[in-house]
Parts: sequence; C-alpha cells; structure tokens
Amino acid sequence: MRWLQAAAQPRSGAASRRAVRLGIGDDAAILRFAAGEDAVVTTDLFLEGVHFLRARERAADCGYRCASRALSDLAAMGARPAALFVSLALPPASGAWGRQFFRGLLAAARQAGAELAGGDLAALPRGVLADIVGLGAAPRGRALTRAGARPGDRLFVSGRLGLAAAGRAWVQGGARRGAKREMPPAAAIARFRRPRARWELGMALAAQRLATAAMDISDGLSLDLARLCAASGVGAVVDAARLPRLPGPQGLRHALAGGEDYELLFTVPARNTARLRRLHPAGVALTEIGEITAQPGLWLRPASGPPRPLAARGWDHFQRRG
Amino acid sequence: MRWLQAAAQPRSGAASRRAVRLGIGDDAAILRFAAGEDAVVTTDLFLEGVHFLRARERAADCGYRCASRALSDLAAMGARPAALFVSLALPPASGAWGRQFFRGLLAAARQAGAELAGGDLAALPRGVLADIVGLGAAPRGRALTRAGARPGDRLFVSGRLGLAAAGRAWVQGGARRGAKREMPPAAAIARFRRPRARWELGMALAAQRLATAAMDISDGLSLDLARLCAASGVGAVVDAARLPRLPGPQGLRHALAGGEDYELLFTVPARNTARLRRLHPAGVALTEIGEITAQPGLWLRPASGPPRPLAARGWDHFQRRG
Repeated sequence: MRWLQAAAQPRSGAASRRAVRLGIGDDAAILRFAAGEDAVVTTDLFLEGVHFLRARERAADCGYRCASRALSDLAAMGARPAALFVSLALPPASGAWGRQFFRGLLAAARQAGAELAGGDLAALPRGVLADIVGLGAAPRGRALTRAGARPGDRLFVSGRLGLAAAGRAWVQGGARRGAKREMPPAAAIARFRRPRARWELGMALAAQRLATAAMDISDGLSLDLARLCAASGVGAVVDAARLPRLPGPQGLRHALAGGEDYELLFTVPARNTARLRRLHPAGVALTEIGEITAQPGLWLRPASGPPRPLAARGWDHFQRRG
Repeated sequence: MRWLQAAAQPRSGAASRRAVRLGIGDDAAILRFAAGEDAVVTTDLFLEGVHFLRARERAADCGYRCASRALSDLAAMGARPAALFVSLALPPASGAWGRQFFRGLLAAARQAGAELAGGDLAALPRGVLADIVGLGAAPRGRALTRAGARPGDRLFVSGRLGLAAAGRAWVQGGARRGAKREMPPAAAIARFRRPRARWELGMALAAQRLATAAMDISDGLSLDLARLCAASGVGAVVDAARLPRLPGPQGLRHALAGGEDYELLFTVPARNTARLRRLHPAGVALTEIGEITAQPGLWLRPASGPPRPLAARGWDHFQRRG
C-alpha cells in the first residue's frame, strides 16, 4: 500500500479546506467537518461482469467510473466531495491491473477535490470486486433527498440521457451475443468510460435551496424516477419530446432504461425555475422534462396523443451479463 | 432491502444523541457530528475462506464478527461508534444466510450504540464477501493513532491475547489439514465467535488523554506491535511472563501471532498509569506487558535470561485457508 499512500497524497489545496486530517495508514481515517456541515456517506459495490468487463475496458477507466459512482451519489445529495475509501478484492496476479485501476480512481477523485483516505486490499480467487465509499459535506440540514417533491414541481435532468448505455453497448458489445456493433457518438463512449459526476450542480441546488428532491440516474430514468416518486409519495408526467437524448427508438430506450448515466434528476418548484436557469453549473445542460403530479404513477406524454403509462424499467444489476 | 431497513431502525436512544439523521434508502446517508467532534472512518474487507468459513460457523456469528472488525478499529482511535455501512456480495441462493448475517451484525451494532445506516447488496457467483465501514465520533483533535508512542511509555493490552486464535482452531479445525482438535476454554470459543470490541476503553483513553498511541490487535501482538512501533519511530520490549494468555507454548504462539483478538494495544506515559488503573472500563482487564524503547526493534524478555528478538509474525490475510 506504500505506493498508494504516496499516490494518494493531495497535490495542493489549503490545509484548512481539507476535510481529511489523517488518511491511509492507521486503523482509521480522521475527517473534520465544519460546524455548519452535515456528513454525507455513500457505499456502492462495483463488480466485474456487472459494472465492468476486464477484457474490454482499460483498468484506469474502470477506476474512474468506480469513483464516479460514489461522487455521483454525493452530488445527488448536494454534498461537496471530501474523501473516498476503496476496498478492492482481486486475483493475486493482477497487481498491475490494480495499480491502473487506482490511477483512474485517483484522477476522478482529484478532479472532484476528494482525497483517497483509506481502504482495504484482499485476494479473491477469480474476478474483481470493489466497494467504493464516498464522504462529503453538505450545508447543515440542506442535503437533498429523494423525498420532498411536491405536485406541480418541475422535473429536470442534467446532461443527455442514455449516452452511457449507448457507449457501453459499443465498448462491451462484442462480449454479448446478439448485440449490434453500431458506433455511437464519441460523447457516448466518453460518457460511459469516464462519466463526470455533477457535484457542482448538486452543491448549488442544495446551497441555494433550489430543489425539493434530487437523486442521480444510475439505473435509467424510468426506474430512478419511480424511486424518487415513491419516496416523495407523488407521481410524474414526462414529455417524450423534451428528453435530451440520442435520436431513434434505441435512443429513447437508452434514455428511459439505460444505466450509469450519472446525471442528476431533480424537482424544482415553479417559482425557482428562473433562478435555476441562471446557474450554468460547469457548462452542463439542464432540461425540464416534465412535472410532478399528486396522483401516484408515471406517465409518458408523446408529441401527440394521450399520455401512456411509463413502465419503470432499468438497468438490472442482478441480470446476467458478458 | 425493506426488511433490513425495518430491522435497522434504532429501538431507543434520544434523537439528539443520534449521529444518523438519514439512514438506509436514499442515495446516501446523512450524519451530524457535534462541533467539538472529529469523524473517524474505517473500512475492512471480510472474506469467506479467510475471515470465516460458511460450513463451520453460524451466519449470525459471522455478521457479529464482521461488525466487530469495524467497531474495534473505531475503539482503537478512541471514537464513539455511530454508524455502520455494509456492502455484502453473496451467491443468489443464499438469502437466508444473508438475513442471519445481518441479524448478528445488527446485534453487535446495537450493543455499541451504532446504527446500520446503509450499504449495498450484490450477487457473486460463489463465495461471500462483505465490506464493513464504521463511522465514529472522537473528541476533536484527541483521536488516538499509532504514532505518538515515546521511549519510556508503558505498553498495555486489554483482555487476554490469543483467545480468538485458540477458538478459531477449534471452530474451523476440522477444515484444515493437520490441525489438532483440542478443546479450548469456552471463553476462547466465545471470543472467536462474538468478539466484543473495546470501545469504552478506547473512548476513555482518548477523552482523558491517557494514551500516547493505540491500535487494535487484529493480526497478532508481534505483528501489530511492529506496526505501532514503526509508526511511532520507536522499539519495544515485551515481558513474556506478563502476557495475559492461555497456558503452554501454543498459548504463547497464539498470543504473539494469533489473529482477530480485537483487543487494544496502547502506550501510556508512566505518569498516567495510576489514573489508568482507576478506569475499569466495562470490566475488561488491562495488563502492562512491557515498555517502549528509543532503539527500534522488538524484544521478548523471558522470565530468566537475556531478551531475544521478537519476530513480527502474524495472521496473514493472504494465506490460503480452508
């Protein structure tokens, strides 16, 4: 772990801004939050064959995406990323893969201002598994949750949906039977390989009290929207024509049920939409895609004709892949 | 996860004392620390075939021991346990095992006043793996680390060393070739199955500034003492006759190189030893076993004759077992 300890050293940043007081190497890490801050904690498993394919992907990209999984959860809560912890289990002879994995992970962490503050390593007979833990700081009492959306709230998403799913189909395509090898836009491949989480947006939504609810889209819009609505006790109508997505029926399918977009889905009271439009957080597009309803249930409103029920179908992490 | 969410609900305790403001079910958990507190964070992998054997142990005991791994790291830092997060990967058909695992884990968490605040579940083709994350609160700037031991400091341990190793040999014995089936005291079997971490002791050492350095003994005294000395830039002499242990050469071997004791190893300036003896934390015995030296290196002082070098040998987590 010595090279990792050295590689994880923060390169810059005022010490007073650093939440991590003691990092890798002791029984535990020590973090200090400001008096006006809450700590936000997320943990996610990242598995070979489910979230990545070693034979088809660069180890550094896997590490980057693993970090983004945690950073995106912190973004969804409106938290400033502070620290990551990674427990990595891998076959004994895959040390070089592990080092590249950590390089990608550290690149994502640095971009977000988070330090790698600890973790664990273990040998696994076959396959690679990582557990990624993210710690962030949110203004006290202002962290965003999935609950809180109210009827009449406008429904927004960041970025373009389904890009990662299109990118994954290309990168992992050959490994799955029957998958079409259709080259998607370069942005889709990049979004799958190195998805940048939307922490600036999340932080702004929380700090300025713009949103009533938020979550990140990791399993596809239809499934994640169903979760947000269930937590808030509301329903939603989505305008099909407004979805920021790739063209064609495949583009719509990827937007509604593709995984790993790591964009934010959030609800904004109508009175806040003008302030929201002035945000411009790190150049990411924000699109109003529908609204929250008092009546539970999800509906998709086509360009013409009556709304039809929107089935909550998403990226199933238990499905068999590869 | 719904039954787990329900089972993880805290049964009592003033809401104002609870660090966990939002637990299982959202993108992340929210914790609130007091202004005078630092957050302490630990992560550990817990693997079938290394830390436990499914065929030989009760699932609830595995869960209890998994929680103790994190609680013991928090104890070593002098932190009050606040929350646990568990990511569990297991074969699809082992749901009943998983439920029992969580029951044991929750029992340990409740005992320590910690809440299960989140985690992740995933399917693994074979074998069980858990990543346990512990969050605790330490008085600001007073968390104990491995660095800080000074020449002349007295070396202490809690409890009796090697109990867990003796218990493990009995519980897992038949699974290893050449292992002797020799029934150890009931306390040894209990210490292996359900090791209670020493958080009251750790909290008292930190809050009252009694210790200069501390860590938990998870890989055997000789290996863990070597780590503490390396972090502090010092050496140590251990009195063989003073080691609190089981009788016989096997008892000495287990005390020096047995794993999973989850007792505390800590250093105390001579001026603090009288105050230390008045502690009586939760009835656990404290034994002075030696002292810190300016000269690096570990020495074992026998009852008679000159000291001999003490090799840092411990429980190797990468060794092949089962």
